[in-house]
Amino acid sequence: MASGKILVAQGGGPTAVINQSLAGIALEARRFRNVERVYGARHGVRGIVDEDFVDLSQETSHNLEQVANTPSSALGSTRDKPDLQYCHEIFQVLRAHEIEHFFYIGGNDSSDTVRIVSQEAHKAGYPLRCIHVPKTIDNDLVGSDHTPGFPSAARFVAQAFAGANLDNAALPGVYVGVVMGRHAGFLTAASALGKKFPEDGPHLIYLPERVFDLEQFLSDVAATYARFGRCVIAVSEGIHDAAGTPIASLLAQEIEHDAHGNVQLSGNGALADLLCEAIKARMKIKRVRGDTFGYLQRSFIGCVSDVDQREAREVGEKAVQFAMWGSRDGSVAIRRTGFYSVDYQLLALEEVAGKTRVMEDAFIAASGTDVTDAFRLYLRPLLGSGMPEAFRLRPSPVARIRTAPG
Amino acid sequence: MASGKILVAQGGGPTAVINQSLAGIALEARRFRNVERVYGARHGVRGIVDEDFVDLSQETSHNLEQVANTPSSALGSTRDKPDLQYCHEIFQVLRAHEIEHFFYIGGNDSSDTVRIVSQEAHKAGYPLRCIHVPKTIDNDLVGSDHTPGFPSAARFVAQAFAGANLDNAALPGVYVGVVMGRHAGFLTAASALGKKFPEDGPHLIYLPERVFDLEQFLSDVAATYARFGRCVIAVSEGIHDAAGTPIASLLAQEIEHDAHGNVQLSGNGALADLLCEAIKARMKIKRVRGDTFGYLQRSFIGCVSDVDQREAREVGEKAVQFAMWGSRDGSVAIRRTGFYSVDYQLLALEEVAGKTRVMEDAFIAASGTDVTDAFRLYLRPLLGSGMPEAFRLRPSPVARIRTAPG
Repeated sequence: MASGKILVAQGGGPTAVINQSLAGIALEARRFRNVERVYGARHGVRGIVDEDFVDLSQETSHNLEQVANTPSSALGSTRDKPDLQYCHEIFQVLRAHEIEHFFYIGGNDSSDTVRIVSQEAHKAGYPLRCIHVPKTIDNDLVGSDHTPGFPSAARFVAQAFAGANLDNAALPGVYVGVVMGRHAGFLTAASALGKKFPEDGPHLIYLPERVFDLEQFLSDVAATYARFGRCVIAVSEGIHDAAGTPIASLLAQEIEHDAHGNVQLSGNGALADLLCEAIKARMKIKRVRGDTFGYLQRSFIGCVSDVDQREAREVGEKAVQFAMWGSRDGSVAIRRTGFYSVDYQLLALEEVAGKTRVMEDAFIAASGTDVTDAFRLYLRPLLGSGMPEAFRLRPSPVARIRTAPG
Repeated sequence: MASGKILVAQGGGPTAVINQSLAGIALEARRFRNVERVYGARHGVRGIVDEDFVDLSQETSHNLEQVANTPSSALGSTRDKPDLQYCHEIFQVLRAHEIEHFFYIGGNDSSDTVRIVSQEAHKAGYPLRCIHVPKTIDNDLVGSDHTPGFPSAARFVAQAFAGANLDNAALPGVYVGVVMGRHAGFLTAASALGKKFPEDGPHLIYLPERVFDLEQFLSDVAATYARFGRCVIAVSEGIHDAAGTPIASLLAQEIEHDAHGNVQLSGNGALADLLCEAIKARMKIKRVRGDTFGYLQRSFIGCVSDVDQREAREVGEKAVQFAMWGSRDGSVAIRRTGFYSVDYQLLALEEVAGKTRVMEDAFIAASGTDVTDAFRLYLRPLLGSGMPEAFRLRPSPVARIRTAPG
């Protein structure tokens, strides 16, 4: 056939650098003389079955570079999780358009779609090269050291907690910040990288990798408040009890008057508010405040890791190179080769598809409410250059005149 | 007396640049040979009556510069609003420590405190120079073109909405972002500076300067959604009905099961959640999400306007110069003298104290849900240099093969 056509699409939640991978694919593909057209599908797999394509070959490299530096999915995204029939539809469209190479930028659901489409093509004897290009702020893809998109979101969370800690030190009280991540706590754990001085928050970190116990939580908060006169807490939206029931729904049931009866984890402030109410009900602390970082942590423009940008670009470029020079379908993975350097490899789709990575035990402190130095060492280089740093006044007290020191 | 002692304190909500004013005061004061000591009070007026002072004369200029670039109030802050008796206490402590110059960095409550302390000193015949140094993210001080702290918070809000708009374009639906500002809508209006293309959000902006009507709101959202297939909304936490009742409490009452019965405006996600529920209840839109920007908008480290930094520094320096070379107490104000340049003047404390500025009518569009070009022209230079910019792919559709275009 040799149509010279490739297709790229973006799926799932947008990230700060997903357009770097898009630009990496589009610009790298143009360098191959057998590639005549680079199509993009609008809104992921939905755009494929709807045949809603744009021709990226007619886009300037200048604008592709500008788009690469813009957060969110420039082609649009989708939450569709294709089943077998849906994947069959996708394949039919790809065949009709004589697509030779299919690149899907997304998380583990997307990798599963790529896996099934690859099987469909194989069954039909149609020569289609299918490559999954990783992205997710949750960092929950197996087989990779980390996933493009996570470092920038982690940087946002670290900067947010560094600032929240300063605010809480100025006006002491309890502060609860709820972070995205239903099963994997990497993003919540990133809050620890906002700490500089030993007294800094977050003083407590609650991850979905550990069972959440409300009594233990309240007792942790009370102890921290007694020690520092304040308490900054990072909480994953995915915290759950021993049975796996989300804490947000449990708390909502406990509280009689309940606007959060049917609790959705993201896109509302329920968990933060409910935890704050639990703290207020138990402790005599005047100032208890909760923030849900919500969509800001993945969409805020102007908070990005340059390491993440570079890697997301390379992941896209490597995807094209694996497709062109290799002989098999797969998922591009990042392997750490130094402190700090990486290399890329192509994993079999079966190794990645539909699986979920959670935080390794070595990254979680024995207390269950902090991270280890191993995690700090793991995450710090990913956050990139130019991390803002907090400074404070050095103590130099003045003697009292009117009153005896308390 | 000629003790050569000055005292500086920080009050109210922290900002990204309040430490610039602190450093401006401390470093400028050191240049005067009659100033021997620069004291800082910990946690605002509370630290004065508690005699909790630190000696900033023993701080290095290097570290003061680093602290200047750190958000939040380095001396600590307070929410105390002193009455006459409290102010009398403040004055007694200042006199006991032979303080000659008192600088209080804060909003309109703080300016009122400075006014009363100034009167106390005058009544007692004690030679105290009292200067109010302005800061507030709400931009609600009268007599100033704008207030230090507002530009950086406005930049955060503009960047947040620029990102939220991209996210909403990738995964279409309704997005509600709730912004701080109880009486003045400046910060919420700043969301408009996140727009680049005509189709960009925020498509609707709700300010406390206009009466909020839920029916009108739902009808605005429906019309916008019908037009763009999505809708991004900026809402001030201070929106209220014609009688002045906060919408958050009204909505909480309407919804039978209510975790938000006693609604506090800041520090929880109630208003965003309640508005989202109202939209979902009325319209058949699957994706309705709400974020409350909360403390991030004033505390996030790494999002600051360089213009704001510069001006906050100068406001501190000018405060010392007005105190040293002038002969009266007052509040430092920013006057705009060009596009873009400013000068500083000392207003009488009575002109500023306890008053609240709201958005001028000329800044609000006739629709009541948008800002005018006059506001864009007013705000843009304040946001500073290096504002991140969003780019998008230019449309270049590919002809369908299998299906007729819908």
